[in-house]
Amino acid sequence: MPVNLQAPKSLLPVKGVTLSAVTANIRYKNRNDLVLINLSEGGSAAGVFTRNKFCAAPVTLCRQHLSENTSPRYLLINAGNANAGTGEKGLHNAQQTCAMLADLNDLHPNDILPFSTGVIGEQLPLEPFEESLPQAVEQLAEDNWILAAEGIMTTDTVAKGVSEQIEIDGKTVTVTGIAKGSGMIEPNMATLLAYVACDADVEAELLQQVLNEAVADSFNAITVDADTSTNDSLVLLASGQAGVTITENNRAAFQQVINKVCQQLAQAIIRDAEGATKFVTIEVESAPDREYAREIAYTVARSPLVKTALFASDPNWGRLLMAIGRSNVDDLDVSKLSLWLGDTQLLASGEPLESYTEEQGQIEMNQEEITIRIALNAGNTAARIWTSDLSHEYVTINAEYRS
Amino acid sequence: MPVNLQAPKSLLPVKGVTLSAVTANIRYKNRNDLVLINLSEGGSAAGVFTRNKFCAAPVTLCRQHLSENTSPRYLLINAGNANAGTGEKGLHNAQQTCAMLADLNDLHPNDILPFSTGVIGEQLPLEPFEESLPQAVEQLAEDNWILAAEGIMTTDTVAKGVSEQIEIDGKTVTVTGIAKGSGMIEPNMATLLAYVACDADVEAELLQQVLNEAVADSFNAITVDADTSTNDSLVLLASGQAGVTITENNRAAFQQVINKVCQQLAQAIIRDAEGATKFVTIEVESAPDREYAREIAYTVARSPLVKTALFASDPNWGRLLMAIGRSNVDDLDVSKLSLWLGDTQLLASGEPLESYTEEQGQIEMNQEEITIRIALNAGNTAARIWTSDLSHEYVTINAEYRS
Repeated sequence: MPVNLQAPKSLLPVKGVTLSAVTANIRYKNRNDLVLINLSEGGSAAGVFTRNKFCAAPVTLCRQHLSENTSPRYLLINAGNANAGTGEKGLHNAQQTCAMLADLNDLHPNDILPFSTGVIGEQLPLEPFEESLPQAVEQLAEDNWILAAEGIMTTDTVAKGVSEQIEIDGKTVTVTGIAKGSGMIEPNMATLLAYVACDADVEAELLQQVLNEAVADSFNAITVDADTSTNDSLVLLASGQAGVTITENNRAAFQQVINKVCQQLAQAIIRDAEGATKFVTIEVESAPDREYAREIAYTVARSPLVKTALFASDPNWGRLLMAIGRSNVDDLDVSKLSLWLGDTQLLASGEPLESYTEEQGQIEMNQEEITIRIALNAGNTAARIWTSDLSHEYVTINAEYRS
Repeated sequence: MPVNLQAPKSLLPVKGVTLSAVTANIRYKNRNDLVLINLSEGGSAAGVFTRNKFCAAPVTLCRQHLSENTSPRYLLINAGNANAGTGEKGLHNAQQTCAMLADLNDLHPNDILPFSTGVIGEQLPLEPFEESLPQAVEQLAEDNWILAAEGIMTTDTVAKGVSEQIEIDGKTVTVTGIAKGSGMIEPNMATLLAYVACDADVEAELLQQVLNEAVADSFNAITVDADTSTNDSLVLLASGQAGVTITENNRAAFQQVINKVCQQLAQAIIRDAEGATKFVTIEVESAPDREYAREIAYTVARSPLVKTALFASDPNWGRLLMAIGRSNVDDLDVSKLSLWLGDTQLLASGEPLESYTEEQGQIEMNQEEITIRIALNAGNTAARIWTSDLSHEYVTINAEYRS
């Protein structure tokens, strides 16, 4: 059961962006598993991709196409097969799917950005693409965002999507995004994919800058199990049909709305993390710099012993000290450190607070949404990340689920 | 249930080293929880300790005493309370326990090395020490190694100890070691402690060198859950009563036997890891250097998705690729990489082997002892580490066990 997350009831169309989802039977039967997103001519795109060195074939090809052409026309996404660990043949198959869709629309293959999610180590079958792509093109429509969000799911328990609108220069800009992923990764059957589109006019280089900034505090600020997918991909599209052009002058408002959509999607992934029973925010403040703060936050977030304590609603703050103490940072002065669970302070200047009681800690840990706040008193930089707990259900999903 | 591990039936006495274990009721009732190890006058000691910045009070004090005095007379160990996260008062209490034992024997406090293991964040009660130390001194005897191994246990399911003998310069050197720990750490109720003693005569500086070398491929080559204890301590004692002096000339044989004892103790901890059902060896070979190989081995060993696949006996090699690919190393060329499960090769030069079948992988994964071998073909250095799987029992132990 996801933590305080429901599937979106409606998502706003984005002018210049149409979508479709069809049943191609790539792996799943009787559900949509092939999704197309079409961007009108003259739009722009930016992307960020997994840093895993064993990245999947579609990631390699998608990076290449985007480097050649920041005005792509189609995103082609399949669920059920990740086309990862598939060697040269896998790359060839990814190229073939792009070529098929390009031929259907009289485009160049690099007008297509390919994405796959699902089982690793199996070759992608091409017949389902041949059979289903014409239908997928035919069914493209502006109001298919929810169908698309459902079509890219693997082990997700709910579809994930969000819409926001903002006024810029007197015009309304609409931003809609969808994402899938139920762990930072589950490379057997799930990976993280996200697609965000807007109707502002944004030159590709600026669009990439906006995306990089948004990702830093959203998709790059979450962890379920520290395992980075071979297929993670996030693409931001700008159709340019809202009648407003984004430049450095009006970037701030645009940046803000993109940040907001990315954060909500990233949080949705954590809320639906494999086996999650808690949504946990970790804040590290008064750090010497951002990477210092993030290293401590991530060490706490990744710790199996912290995560099992969170699952147990156990105010076992010794495990928090242990995880903070093993962080790979220089010159951590634990005698300056303060620690809070929610609003309850446990530690001040490295010493346990006499006033703290186990009962107070228990009340904080019983919540479904828990904030762990760590003040280093060693600088003025902060970082915040989101994570989930480690439950029996996580082990069940990842041990007993067989591809 | 530990993986292929039984409690030692007998351990060899080491001349010049006596031990005792008594029931002090520090936390546990009706079992021994206070252990003394006495080293004869003129012996030497070396130690390695946790790098956790939140290290426990006894670790701070033990480091200090050993830096002042490499010829200590007593190791004083308690189970049930880690004296960690206890601030200034915790340090004072650790000093008091040393002072008590020193007074009883007309020694200086820095002749005592203190160790604690158990619950974090509770003050160490001093009365049990006052009441039980005289009895513990009285009962010191050479043949109490097994009693001591049992007395330092916390969540361990079996006592851990090993003895070896070796001829050096025509004389027999005896080495006996004991250890506790059932996870690299479980900071609530368990940490790693190990004590190894021999009767050779070894000057303290050389003894420390020998220990550092032995630890590199034993205690520093294991992981259960990546969580580093606040209390980890390993001490090597040399009584000098076997009539043989170790120098650089005859160091090799001595180093070998110390390595062997440390490796067996370290492996025993993994075999008894919390919830373990598998004993897993990860070998990374043909790497540019040792740290490069260890980073990849540890990333694989720590991966929750690899560990749950091991628990499920699932030959899910996509997860191995994922973990290797997310290792924090530069210039990893995945197109050179070969991969084996036991004797079965899965990958050659980065490509899946056509001849590999899921049935072959299944046979390898069904074993209780599994070797994952990764050849990088990028150098001539290798590293080997040991780890366990991630089971429901691990979550149960760490989520449902309340201190």
